[in-house]
Amino acid sequence: MTQTTEHSQHATRAAAWLRRAEKDLAAYQNAPKQTRPRDNKLCASLEEAIRRSGLRDGMTLSFHHAFRGGDLTLNLVMEAVARAGLKDLTLASSSLSDCHEPLIEHIRHGVISRIYTSGLRGPLAEEISRGLLNEPVQIHSHGGRVQLIESGELNIDVAFLGVPSCDPAGNANGFTGSANCGSLGYARVDAGYATQVVLLTETLLPYPHHSASIAQDQVDLIVQVDRVGDSDKIGADATRMTSNPRELLIARSAAEVIARSGYFNDGFSIQTGSGGASLAVTRFLEDKMRRRGICADFALGGITASIVDLHEKGLIRKLLDVQSFDRCAAESLARNPNHIEISANQYANLNSKGASVDRLDVVVLSALEIDTGFNVNVLTGSDGVLRGASGGHCDTAAAAALSIIVAPLVRGRIPTLVDKVTTCVTPGSSIDILVTDHGIAVNPSRQELAKRLQEAGMKIVPVEWLRERAQLLTGQPHAVEFTGRVIAVVRYRDGSVIDVVHQVKE
Amino acid sequence: MTQTTEHSQHATRAAAWLRRAEKDLAAYQNAPKQTRPRDNKLCASLEEAIRRSGLRDGMTLSFHHAFRGGDLTLNLVMEAVARAGLKDLTLASSSLSDCHEPLIEHIRHGVISRIYTSGLRGPLAEEISRGLLNEPVQIHSHGGRVQLIESGELNIDVAFLGVPSCDPAGNANGFTGSANCGSLGYARVDAGYATQVVLLTETLLPYPHHSASIAQDQVDLIVQVDRVGDSDKIGADATRMTSNPRELLIARSAAEVIARSGYFNDGFSIQTGSGGASLAVTRFLEDKMRRRGICADFALGGITASIVDLHEKGLIRKLLDVQSFDRCAAESLARNPNHIEISANQYANLNSKGASVDRLDVVVLSALEIDTGFNVNVLTGSDGVLRGASGGHCDTAAAAALSIIVAPLVRGRIPTLVDKVTTCVTPGSSIDILVTDHGIAVNPSRQELAKRLQEAGMKIVPVEWLRERAQLLTGQPHAVEFTGRVIAVVRYRDGSVIDVVHQVKE
Repeated sequence: MTQTTEHSQHATRAAAWLRRAEKDLAAYQNAPKQTRPRDNKLCASLEEAIRRSGLRDGMTLSFHHAFRGGDLTLNLVMEAVARAGLKDLTLASSSLSDCHEPLIEHIRHGVISRIYTSGLRGPLAEEISRGLLNEPVQIHSHGGRVQLIESGELNIDVAFLGVPSCDPAGNANGFTGSANCGSLGYARVDAGYATQVVLLTETLLPYPHHSASIAQDQVDLIVQVDRVGDSDKIGADATRMTSNPRELLIARSAAEVIARSGYFNDGFSIQTGSGGASLAVTRFLEDKMRRRGICADFALGGITASIVDLHEKGLIRKLLDVQSFDRCAAESLARNPNHIEISANQYANLNSKGASVDRLDVVVLSALEIDTGFNVNVLTGSDGVLRGASGGHCDTAAAAALSIIVAPLVRGRIPTLVDKVTTCVTPGSSIDILVTDHGIAVNPSRQELAKRLQEAGMKIVPVEWLRERAQLLTGQPHAVEFTGRVIAVVRYRDGSVIDVVHQVKE
Repeated sequence: MTQTTEHSQHATRAAAWLRRAEKDLAAYQNAPKQTRPRDNKLCASLEEAIRRSGLRDGMTLSFHHAFRGGDLTLNLVMEAVARAGLKDLTLASSSLSDCHEPLIEHIRHGVISRIYTSGLRGPLAEEISRGLLNEPVQIHSHGGRVQLIESGELNIDVAFLGVPSCDPAGNANGFTGSANCGSLGYARVDAGYATQVVLLTETLLPYPHHSASIAQDQVDLIVQVDRVGDSDKIGADATRMTSNPRELLIARSAAEVIARSGYFNDGFSIQTGSGGASLAVTRFLEDKMRRRGICADFALGGITASIVDLHEKGLIRKLLDVQSFDRCAAESLARNPNHIEISANQYANLNSKGASVDRLDVVVLSALEIDTGFNVNVLTGSDGVLRGASGGHCDTAAAAALSIIVAPLVRGRIPTLVDKVTTCVTPGSSIDILVTDHGIAVNPSRQELAKRLQEAGMKIVPVEWLRERAQLLTGQPHAVEFTGRVIAVVRYRDGSVIDVVHQVKE
């Protein structure tokens, strides 16, 4: 380019910038100072918050389930939403509990038309199993929910997030206040993605409140309410340390498996699910850890009092908490600097740049059913009715180096080990070992693992042998009858459809 | 809708879901387990990191300036980028210092074609003032940078972020390690928006490292290098507590103004800029705070040792830190639970859902020039050469309830107070008070403030009177000559063009 051409190009561009500048400068000089009202997020009522959020018919609203069975937020908001006359909404709560029974009426009245959730329980689950919703419920894993949001399929218009406290700008965490739910791991995703973020808070604190799991630059509206959740009911059902002898037997057996698996080394990592036997594994592991001088680098997942106990004893260095399963865990998060909150994206999203499940050595999970292909059902009972959750099951099982299912071979007259699961949530390719009270089976794709365990003195049996034993114990169970109608779709962690659930025939 | 129609609609949809499910289930059962390599982010060399980042000619790369004059990362990366033969890149460093002089050669060789930055200094700034870059530099404020990113104008392909340490998944903060830069407030924005995020780290720590200012789900690549920054040079130039008597006089005067402004109440908030007089204001305020029993709820901004000192004395409750201006502040962030890191978006972005500047009572800022319309220049010297930064100036000035400029009326034979600023960075409508060593002037748009100060016994003079005094002291300075070519464009916080800078005539 000649110097003349370059020069005239400069001149042309300069003139363009100058024109932009001269026009703007006058505007600045005449503009009033830009100070803004400081507490304009605060709403006088939930009604005002709903109105200002712009929630309209057909939109998607979301909630987090950190309060689990003690949640009070969803019902409170849905009541107000229904009173406001809104219809045809998509509900995206990270999970649903027995306490969300009032949704039945909202569905009947056309307030809610579609549901995305990790799980369903109680009367709501039964009604949906019987065909209450016109469109099938979308069941996703914890990591899978983030993927659905990122893909654009789940597009949250308004997130209503219950927190114990926040400041007038919206800085909030889950452990400051009496409605202590600990980790806001799920809520953090909604706070990052929803178009409008509404905080329901019991208490307003002076600015600035910290630490902020949800931050001021994520929050649009705030409304103070009496109660967002009951912390005493967080761990009520699923996180008791079992005293059931059979569960303890299974747990001890699983601990033996871990100890001899080749994965039990200093610096290993572990996750245990909620549910009697898997929780109890930690107790049996504790002795082995002491005896061998083994400390875990971290425990992951839903954090319970048992895990906190091992941490405080110095046997687990750090806790990565996406959900605090009981008050003890919630309080530990508040006070233990090495008890760390992580978001669902950091926990388990397949497409995350870094998910903790990918660094997990051992996961111990439960099952409602498991079949001879090691496929697992944690969603539907033997009666075909929805009664569980996908949760972190398929995320952790797929990613952990060693994935163990602990379960009683039979429950009464109902076999846990079946020929084919009623509903597949986690594919057999993710499961390495099944530990029951009648024996231990290893996935044939893990021959090296079976060999290692046998060389260490453990008895391994073929899964078919266990199946026959189950059949002997229960006889042939009455087959469940379904209609042709699909009432739930099970989405795998990558968004694909792994299975469907049919309507139970009355 | 008739029941038959509804039923057949269900059947059609059910069939569709089933088809999706059957096809996918086979895929799951045959798929290998999804465990992933755990340390696949680690690169053996900077060259590998650049290659894997996908950086190509014409793309945009970014850096943070938490190390200020002690930054080593930008030059290190640019050297490797140049060696890799890349050309025509847009450089988006949150700011630039004297130490970035090597960029001159990269510009000459066509490696860098465009620059977005908050400021420029030293030889690089001089060369650009003389026309080194073909396209004008885009000068933005700290909040304005986030707005440019969110609008899509500044589209960061690869962010190269220097950190003292991180774990193999990329969890990092700015204060763990010897290259302690404290707050990663600017880097957090890049980590959230860049397509590819590369961490340069001096140390690799065991997983999981915390707290995480940059988190594992934001990081793509990691490379270990000898040095990312020299913490001793962070505060070298701009953050010394002055002993200059004139600056102290101005500072005392400004403290008087604050004390009588009506904004000096328990729970107030304050920000002081870097630079002699504005820093020194804190010393004089301290006595007044003690005497009146006034504590500040928070201090904001670039945090210095003086501010930390007031915090540790109990006079400032919390510190909101977007940038730690010296080693003392960096160490305080690591150890003081009420010293809180915030991102540039949480700090000052006009379009953020919640920016701390909007809750700021008092800001004390400096000026290279200010005119009788109270417009402020912090970018170009009296010789027309680039030598400063927009920084947080226009963000804080626009948003704070009381915005004070502290400056000597003249500097040698150069007037600070002029008829018209060489370059306007902050419009006069944002500035409330000018405090000089010759007197105090109040913006005519703040009559109530002037009245309040006068009633409290302070002498207020018209800004024109101060201007005449300046003129008497300096005479008429030699007018700077510019060419018609625009070499820098000053972008206001909302992205609009508030002014341009012309090429200095040789």
